[in-house]
Amino acid sequence: MLTKQEWTADRRAGFAALLGRQRPGWSLEQPFYLDPTIYALERELWFPRQWIVMAHVSELPRRGDRIVRDLFGEEIIIVNAGTDGFHAFYNVCTHRGSRICRDETRTPNLVCPYHAWGFRLTGELLSGRDLPEGADKAELGLHRIGVREAGGLIFCGLDEESLPDLAPALDTLLPALRHHGFHNARIAERRSYPTSANWKLVLENFFECYHCRPSHPEYFRMNGHVAATAVSDEVAAAEWEGGVSAWREQAVAPALDRVVRHAGDIDEVKYSLYRQPIGLGRDTQSHDGKPIAPLMGDFTHYDGGETAMHLGRLSFAGCYNDHAVIFQFMPRGVEETNVVATWLVDADADPGTLDIGSLTFMWDVTTKQDKRIIEDNAAGVRSRAYRPGPYTALESQSASFVASYLEIMGRLVG
Amino acid sequence: MLTKQEWTADRRAGFAALLGRQRPGWSLEQPFYLDPTIYALERELWFPRQWIVMAHVSELPRRGDRIVRDLFGEEIIIVNAGTDGFHAFYNVCTHRGSRICRDETRTPNLVCPYHAWGFRLTGELLSGRDLPEGADKAELGLHRIGVREAGGLIFCGLDEESLPDLAPALDTLLPALRHHGFHNARIAERRSYPTSANWKLVLENFFECYHCRPSHPEYFRMNGHVAATAVSDEVAAAEWEGGVSAWREQAVAPALDRVVRHAGDIDEVKYSLYRQPIGLGRDTQSHDGKPIAPLMGDFTHYDGGETAMHLGRLSFAGCYNDHAVIFQFMPRGVEETNVVATWLVDADADPGTLDIGSLTFMWDVTTKQDKRIIEDNAAGVRSRAYRPGPYTALESQSASFVASYLEIMGRLVG
Amino acid sequence: MLTKQEWTADRRAGFAALLGRQRPGWSLEQPFYLDPTIYALERELWFPRQWIVMAHVSELPRRGDRIVRDLFGEEIIIVNAGTDGFHAFYNVCTHRGSRICRDETRTPNLVCPYHAWGFRLTGELLSGRDLPEGADKAELGLHRIGVREAGGLIFCGLDEESLPDLAPALDTLLPALRHHGFHNARIAERRSYPTSANWKLVLENFFECYHCRPSHPEYFRMNGHVAATAVSDEVAAAEWEGGVSAWREQAVAPALDRVVRHAGDIDEVKYSLYRQPIGLGRDTQSHDGKPIAPLMGDFTHYDGGETAMHLGRLSFAGCYNDHAVIFQFMPRGVEETNVVATWLVDADADPGTLDIGSLTFMWDVTTKQDKRIIEDNAAGVRSRAYRPGPYTALESQSASFVASYLEIMGRLVG
Repeated sequence: MLTKQEWTADRRAGFAALLGRQRPGWSLEQPFYLDPTIYALERELWFPRQWIVMAHVSELPRRGDRIVRDLFGEEIIIVNAGTDGFHAFYNVCTHRGSRICRDETRTPNLVCPYHAWGFRLTGELLSGRDLPEGADKAELGLHRIGVREAGGLIFCGLDEESLPDLAPALDTLLPALRHHGFHNARIAERRSYPTSANWKLVLENFFECYHCRPSHPEYFRMNGHVAATAVSDEVAAAEWEGGVSAWREQAVAPALDRVVRHAGDIDEVKYSLYRQPIGLGRDTQSHDGKPIAPLMGDFTHYDGGETAMHLGRLSFAGCYNDHAVIFQFMPRGVEETNVVATWLVDADADPGTLDIGSLTFMWDVTTKQDKRIIEDNAAGVRSRAYRPGPYTALESQSASFVASYLEIMGRLVG
Repeated sequence: MLTKQEWTADRRAGFAALLGRQRPGWSLEQPFYLDPTIYALERELWFPRQWIVMAHVSELPRRGDRIVRDLFGEEIIIVNAGTDGFHAFYNVCTHRGSRICRDETRTPNLVCPYHAWGFRLTGELLSGRDLPEGADKAELGLHRIGVREAGGLIFCGLDEESLPDLAPALDTLLPALRHHGFHNARIAERRSYPTSANWKLVLENFFECYHCRPSHPEYFRMNGHVAATAVSDEVAAAEWEGGVSAWREQAVAPALDRVVRHAGDIDEVKYSLYRQPIGLGRDTQSHDGKPIAPLMGDFTHYDGGETAMHLGRLSFAGCYNDHAVIFQFMPRGVEETNVVATWLVDADADPGTLDIGSLTFMWDVTTKQDKRIIEDNAAGVRSRAYRPGPYTALESQSASFVASYLEIMGRLVG
Repeated sequence: MLTKQEWTADRRAGFAALLGRQRPGWSLEQPFYLDPTIYALERELWFPRQWIVMAHVSELPRRGDRIVRDLFGEEIIIVNAGTDGFHAFYNVCTHRGSRICRDETRTPNLVCPYHAWGFRLTGELLSGRDLPEGADKAELGLHRIGVREAGGLIFCGLDEESLPDLAPALDTLLPALRHHGFHNARIAERRSYPTSANWKLVLENFFECYHCRPSHPEYFRMNGHVAATAVSDEVAAAEWEGGVSAWREQAVAPALDRVVRHAGDIDEVKYSLYRQPIGLGRDTQSHDGKPIAPLMGDFTHYDGGETAMHLGRLSFAGCYNDHAVIFQFMPRGVEETNVVATWLVDADADPGTLDIGSLTFMWDVTTKQDKRIIEDNAAGVRSRAYRPGPYTALESQSASFVASYLEIMGRLVG
């Protein structure tokens, strides 16, 4: 069992040396993707500082509603405490440590099934009748998780004390989420893509489209931006950028008319906002590019745009005029990452007529392809022959992610 | 691979510090339930000193009968060597180490199937014809396991040298086993409940009934003692104790009329004997409380009593007028424990009319519930939020078990 | 993660002490069969120096043919590069480390499916258009594996630099392979026998026939040599040797008329060549002992002989007049070894009439039995009671193998 103590002295020095010798602009050495002690370190130091979108408000609309989720390998309970807001706790009783609930239901209090200890929705221990002397009821409340609702999304993070302030990110993101109507949405579909690879390999793949031509024929065919992002072709890229500028001049709302990329320092939330046309005559990201659901939020007509947002370092959204997709990248183990995609539509969208197949087509086919190529990547990285390789210009966001990771990890263990 | 050497110096000091900082009356810190190195230490030092009931004599009644069992992760053979008594060995050939047998059968000798080396039922190597020079036949007998038959039960323990003397425990237990007719019993049913949790969590649960009300509705409804053991209610407890005293005055046989609780020091066997009425008008622990099999042993009528025995630290018996249940708690890994329940009835009980469903009802439903709540307990203990919690007054036996474990482990590594 | 550095100082000294205290003529202590750190050391130092037969030329006859195999836990690609000969590579792209191919097909170049980087069949990177500054195309060729074709067999080894010279072994083996017609053969059948045991246990079993009488009734009954190799019987052994001498005088071709056993030093290939009659009136190793396929190579009639060859330390061949069997022992993990048997017949053998059941009978039934007894051996070796035992005279080759292993490992870590 890795303990903090074992990370002193020699190991810390060894890890610092490993961090220090990584070649800028090249992929990481093997241990970053395979070594359980590095994963344990990330689990101890890195993940608990990250906000990630964990739920949509429509999943627990009433006071007493609760849901159970996995957050970085920890089972958590998120509850709607009514006027007391949303609260989140580790699913661990403070008596003998039992899991408190498995089911998602509505309940006036949280009661552990083992010995029936009860807790308020805000976490305090209700009854202390059997408490032995020396046990302080006030210290036996549930273990809290950081939680924050914004624009219909519920963000969580493990360590309340070390979580960065969400406010600067929300200054940019919240108007965009509102414009896209996230607060008045419902979940149309959610799918999980468990991927047997380290979370960093999964993100490196997500951050570049250099692989789109060989690996994603459907995505390549149906998205205008790949002319600039999937192939090194300066003429095509300039043409695309010109088109984006022209489109932007007529269409984009103020809340969305920004290009923000905030990589974020160790004490900051990463966020970004970018808007561009889907292109190729497509109104939205449905299978045929035609409208598929009621317009969301403040949109009054189809402008064919896509708003891409980084919501922290591990959740993302792709937003269209009539739907949105949230991506969560959930590390589950040193070589296991769950990718979850959630499709949102307007709350008034008629479930009877919504074509889920068309709605999910693009990101379902693409994420399945990503799972396969990432797992092949992981297979090669496991080899004793694996060596870091160079990121090309089209993989610059992957290179930036790796550089940022190295810089922050260096400071966390430094 | 953990070796004894690796337990010197630093680790030993670290473990001693861990032992020393456990808060009396509170559950253990996480490593005791999860850390494979602590489990390896227990496997090296703690388990081999424990006697546990491994079989009933009816399982190997004739000379040459053998059975194969798992004892603390070690496969062992128990044989009936006739006038030479019962013997037990590791299932390991002394030639190249092969498993000697998989099947339970009758055989005049033990012959390894690999190269046909033969051994007497008492363990000595039979033929040494092919032995190379320098190999001493007398040193190539089978590796022995401690074994002792008492009152129809076969106790085993791994380390003959460090096993404590069973005699003091048997002074108390043997008359009770005889009164209950264990020596003239047969096995009516055996069921395994593999439980994914550390063995200490399983025992902590077994040692308290504070959880009976929320977790065991059937047990709670059908057993009189829960009024005193499941709820902090001084009036109900006094009433129960009064009833027990009154019952005891008329009914209990001398062999059973004792209240013995011997927790046992490092060099002693833990044992206990306690007898009380089932209560609530029930004659025996069948589904409906009515007689279910012939009276056993020295009983001449139903007195509605239950004799509870601790047979060492890992096996237990619940004995009624017409049947008995043996519980074995078999650690299989740091987070895997097999709970085995064996129902005994009189050897003359008619298999054609015995209602197995009724016989097993109470402990089957209760042990299945225990498996679920213990596994939920283990799930919570795995969390980074888990902290030791306080045992209440109704969990005093669990607290005593933990205190005794800490004390003995401290001396074993000290 | 075990790194070379962690093998300095203490561990190295500990391992040297472990090597040094092994008792000559007795089986190894438990850690050699179970300890993942020793297996990691073997994987780092021992396996990469070994040549092993990986394929037959008939598996990739044309330029561009490629096959994908596992070699010591590493996925490799073997390609036929036409006039450039055979080449072999780790299945790892030099860009980001992706697996390059899963399928066995024909292809003009090797193209990674992730980002479409292409490589020549001889390994060089084809296009470097997107390469960033500082990345040298010449250094981004595929990672090579040692490969050598001889007599129809394709030998591979991981470390080109440390692989010993195959030439001395081939001086003896190649004429025999040619006489047996390996170069003009095809694969009639291939079967895998995944065996849950350390590779050394598997080889120790393969190297002795002391177990043949109790464990292999069919083999025992159908092979003349077991009179001398399965039982300590000097009269029977002398009689068998006399028969072999008489047989040898009339029948054996010059290429086969040699008894060579070269155990091999650290920098040498192990090889051996031995020829004897099957005996008992059998022409070949078919089920009934009668001819089963066209005569192979230079044979003009059935002489009832068997040529046994050691082709390095991990592959072997048993060759008859009309077929041959290649055995590969592929370590897959500390307690997992894949045994692969491949039956070769003459390229002109008619698939329509070849009786695969009869062809494979002897080695299929025997290898299945070996899997079972080796796994039982592994089960016993896992016990805390396991101790090294003495090899008998009939297990001398197993003892030699172990002695050679200890000597070479001592020098590799020394």
